[in-house]
Amino acid sequence: MSTREELIALVESYLDDLALTPELGGLEEPVRYAVAGGGKRVRPLLCLATAEAAGADPEAALPAAAALELVHSFSLVHDDLPALDDDRVRRGRPSTWAQFGEGTGILAGDALLAEALRLALTYPTPAVARELVQATLGMIGGQYLDITGSEPDLAALHRLKTGQLFSAEREQAPWRAFADEVGLLFQIVDDILDEDGYLIERGADGARALADETAERAQARLTEVPADTSVLAGIVAGLAARTS
Amino acid sequence: MSTREELIALVESYLDDLALTPELGGLEEPVRYAVAGGGKRVRPLLCLATAEAAGADPEAALPAAAALELVHSFSLVHDDLPALDDDRVRRGRPSTWAQFGEGTGILAGDALLAEALRLALTYPTPAVARELVQATLGMIGGQYLDITGSEPDLAALHRLKTGQLFSAEREQAPWRAFADEVGLLFQIVDDILDEDGYLIERGADGARALADETAERAQARLTEVPADTSVLAGIVAGLAARTS
Repeated sequence: MSTREELIALVESYLDDLALTPELGGLEEPVRYAVAGGGKRVRPLLCLATAEAAGADPEAALPAAAALELVHSFSLVHDDLPALDDDRVRRGRPSTWAQFGEGTGILAGDALLAEALRLALTYPTPAVARELVQATLGMIGGQYLDITGSEPDLAALHRLKTGQLFSAEREQAPWRAFADEVGLLFQIVDDILDEDGYLIERGADGARALADETAERAQARLTEVPADTSVLAGIVAGLAARTS
Repeated sequence: MSTREELIALVESYLDDLALTPELGGLEEPVRYAVAGGGKRVRPLLCLATAEAAGADPEAALPAAAALELVHSFSLVHDDLPALDDDRVRRGRPSTWAQFGEGTGILAGDALLAEALRLALTYPTPAVARELVQATLGMIGGQYLDITGSEPDLAALHRLKTGQLFSAEREQAPWRAFADEVGLLFQIVDDILDEDGYLIERGADGARALADETAERAQARLTEVPADTSVLAGIVAGLAARTS
């Protein structure tokens, strides 16, 4: 069983060595810039840890894990654009559009999405790419609700924006149930740290209690899975306690 | 054998009835607006006519044909954005961002690309989606060359921007050779009509001669294919003679 650190090292090295489509030419630099920006790699980590817990070789899950991270990067690059969230800074350095210009930011985001699907399509079955594209469509719909301010409720918005990418990982029902809880946990803690969403809705104590309950449910889901889920349990505990 | 008009009617009706992913919610309107804008449907038409010439039921090629049109729409919606070509008008009406706002334009383009891949992934084999994603990556790389003004030469730029989507259609070598010529023909005539690219490079007579030679080569490729390619031959003649 790999440790969390080993799995993250696996992802980082795979992303570093990833050969992009040569036709992207000069777009390679902004695309790599967007992916390299010191993200926590939560999604690929969960993907690899789930694959290993389910008995697969984590190496075999690397293209899917990297595809998740690329779709995540795509969404950040486009969300940061002036016409959307207008963020000039991402993880302590200029966001992709602020560094390379707005037009390049749009195209780099497009390239990230297409590269993600190219990776997902390296599997002999189309199932991985199908999951990813469905999750991406839900995420785009969620982002639209976000910018139009027409979100029906926080839980629905979260399910679309974040949850979709987490639950893309496994077909089996108990894994999906686990993924739903982890996606929700991630969003609640994000809101606590950003003083947004669930924190505004429930207050600091209420949001913290909700995060703890959600983490407990995620842990309970893991016990239902007939597999060694110790690494995943550690990841969930880390997500619940994270401070950045 | 279907006529050109029958094939176009097939595409239009398929696009009209296309059920979008429900999670896109309010993005459905700008997405449909972008697709409905009176395009010539050249790519799906070529896809269906090629499928039928190769002995397949054109109905079976409809998801692939529609996916090509959606990727084409994605590229137009993003290219029209203020940070790229800054076009407020597309086919005689407001471009998608001019009609719905810039943020919505970005997300509608993203949704079109993802929906295209969802359609391409309805086939049991991942081959269709793989072709589409490779073509899309080449097109994005071409658009980047376009905005940075660093294009090495017109033929290379064209191959990336337009040719990729045309040659995505068929795996077999003679079909690909045909697709390459048709893509080039399309681009030369575009440049003649837009007074751009090949027209500037070769002058009016030179560009016209190049278009005619390319159309002849495309027709010659068709004669190499052991199939009834009469509808395709008519489409090529129409592309060479088009005035809009």
